[in-house]
Amino acid sequence: MRDVAIIGVGTTAFGEHWDKSFRAIGIEAGMKAMADAGISGSDIDGMYIGNMSAGHFINQKNIASLIADYSGMSTNHIPATRIEAGGASGAVAFRQAFMAVASGLSDIVLVGGAEKMTDLDDVKINSVLDTTADAEWEAGMGMTFAGLHAMIAQRMIHDGTATREEIASFAVNSHYHGALNPDAQFRKAITLDTVLKSGLVASPLRVFDCAPISDGAASVVLCPLEDARKYTDSFVKVSAAEQASDTLALFQREDITSFGATVAAAQKAYRKAGITAKDIDVAEVHDVFTVSGIMALQDLGFFRKGEAGKAVLDGQCQVGGSAVAVNTSGGLKARGHPIGATGVAQIAEIAQQLRGRADKRQVENARYGLAQSTGGTGSVAAVTVMEAI
Amino acid sequence: MRDVAIIGVGTTAFGEHWDKSFRAIGIEAGMKAMADAGISGSDIDGMYIGNMSAGHFINQKNIASLIADYSGMSTNHIPATRIEAGGASGAVAFRQAFMAVASGLSDIVLVGGAEKMTDLDDVKINSVLDTTADAEWEAGMGMTFAGLHAMIAQRMIHDGTATREEIASFAVNSHYHGALNPDAQFRKAITLDTVLKSGLVASPLRVFDCAPISDGAASVVLCPLEDARKYTDSFVKVSAAEQASDTLALFQREDITSFGATVAAAQKAYRKAGITAKDIDVAEVHDVFTVSGIMALQDLGFFRKGEAGKAVLDGQCQVGGSAVAVNTSGGLKARGHPIGATGVAQIAEIAQQLRGRADKRQVENARYGLAQSTGGTGSVAAVTVMEAI
Repeated sequence: MRDVAIIGVGTTAFGEHWDKSFRAIGIEAGMKAMADAGISGSDIDGMYIGNMSAGHFINQKNIASLIADYSGMSTNHIPATRIEAGGASGAVAFRQAFMAVASGLSDIVLVGGAEKMTDLDDVKINSVLDTTADAEWEAGMGMTFAGLHAMIAQRMIHDGTATREEIASFAVNSHYHGALNPDAQFRKAITLDTVLKSGLVASPLRVFDCAPISDGAASVVLCPLEDARKYTDSFVKVSAAEQASDTLALFQREDITSFGATVAAAQKAYRKAGITAKDIDVAEVHDVFTVSGIMALQDLGFFRKGEAGKAVLDGQCQVGGSAVAVNTSGGLKARGHPIGATGVAQIAEIAQQLRGRADKRQVENARYGLAQSTGGTGSVAAVTVMEAI
Repeated sequence: MRDVAIIGVGTTAFGEHWDKSFRAIGIEAGMKAMADAGISGSDIDGMYIGNMSAGHFINQKNIASLIADYSGMSTNHIPATRIEAGGASGAVAFRQAFMAVASGLSDIVLVGGAEKMTDLDDVKINSVLDTTADAEWEAGMGMTFAGLHAMIAQRMIHDGTATREEIASFAVNSHYHGALNPDAQFRKAITLDTVLKSGLVASPLRVFDCAPISDGAASVVLCPLEDARKYTDSFVKVSAAEQASDTLALFQREDITSFGATVAAAQKAYRKAGITAKDIDVAEVHDVFTVSGIMALQDLGFFRKGEAGKAVLDGQCQVGGSAVAVNTSGGLKARGHPIGATGVAQIAEIAQQLRGRADKRQVENARYGLAQSTGGTGSVAAVTVMEAI
């Protein structure tokens, strides 16, 4: 297996892009990543696309071919593959691209993630989101994705491993960083009160506990580490890209306040990278709800169970804080959550941090970074570890 | 890169399974493949699932986690990944699994393909199928998947590269073999008259030119070639697994009577396997319509343009015929076409042929076999070459 490097990244602004089509945002991110990497389309010999549901959102499946076509690469007939893994679609697509380069089957691979969600009404959008839960035993019984996460929050509060305020503080942390990111959907800092007084969604979770509905795309370019310097002086090493599964339905887990798939993927990733959780300087975690952000920090080993909420409420996870810097992009909550794009955008943010290109949200001397994505209610998780070179 | 072997295969009967759920057929195929390979669930360290549209057909996305869960493998938190590439979903999933084993990232990988289509009404089913065409420039304008293939047939007839009877004869060839396959959806031989007098779908294509709507699942187990004998005495080598893309929309091609993605994937696959088209003894090709079957035989290099139809009409592609044996399983037309399952089932059929286990439809002394799948109107193609050991 060859070592793999990220040599370029590109993202669109996240938000409501009623003036741009799915293919337009997909291409915009891809072109930016290629320009950043200093390559042209004819250099690319493989493509992976993370997308959750263009079939529902814009009546388009087979979108790997669409993106290859509209970026001009179908003339070379390059292999282009779409991955769907719910909210982890982008991160799992990245892992396939990593594998293609590591194996030697491909040399320069473009990974894209894209989703165009805002063309449907909210009821339809939410019925699509619920398809990542168990259709027979959860969604089919009327359970929603927010409802499942609300039960996790209730259990945490009941167990005493997080208070309501600690859970809510994850959104404050994300918005603090979102205000520093010009591409974020929400660029306003908020207070704990903003979260706790917003409209109720599924008790105890309120609107500001939930990531928004978004349009957006992100892209990164991979090549063998030994070739990276041919293209750019600024690249990062992909130290590990791991993935794990868990039961589809939440009720089948022994403990619903920890995602076993995140734990398993993280442990494997640390082992492969030869580091521990303590070595991570900056992390992007999957805060599709505030409560999933708190859980992630514990499942990734940054904090012991019951300690993550306190640290976030205390501001320790902000840029310049005393602990790992978390969701410097604004996270899913403030940067936005165009589902298929999210996992790739997280990796792009970490790559920019490790290249020292994160502007106002730069973590000083960041050496190791991590991105964590989940799909469904933690039924799939992907953990990617990167290292500054 | 390591050499890769197929050590087990399993398929359900294809047809209308109103009494079985998606998860039930997925597990049935997986369990059969594991039993055939002589392995248990704890041996498996990776899983890939080809599925086109469980999100539309049964309101379930995130189905890699579903299958991992219901086959008992989520307790080991193995990575499980879903691939969607329209009609090529199963074949592209197989290629990812091949890559995982070849790279050394995984050792024993289960590939599954499954689709449960018959729970929706025909109008809804067809609207889902049309999402693999271009939503903006084809399906959105009212063009159907059958309509696109009808235009290809019209062009062939106009150019004189196939007659209407030659095109229709592909269905006769598939049904001839389907009658020999106890798991086929249609197990009756038909005549040219059956095709030519069936109901009109999109001129010149009639009902018997079109593959049916089906439920079904298929599975194969892969491991490093050097380890295969630990598990079984009967295995085949995967000599090449290649994939290529083309424009999404048909009107953007210079020649619509050849699929450039099939040509590109096949040429790469032959080169990697160190053979030519002449070496292939048995092939499964993607006859989603009769006309796509005829095109495939030319694009794969078995016949020159204008020659495939004559050969099929002449019976040369039947078991025991003078040319390559084609679609001995019954093909998409007679075995059935549960979309995500099809690519995996084609590979399973070739593996059984090369193991000498194809019963009444066995091709004598078959050494090399090939499976070809396409998605959309040839906007993605996967070609897999296997060799008897």
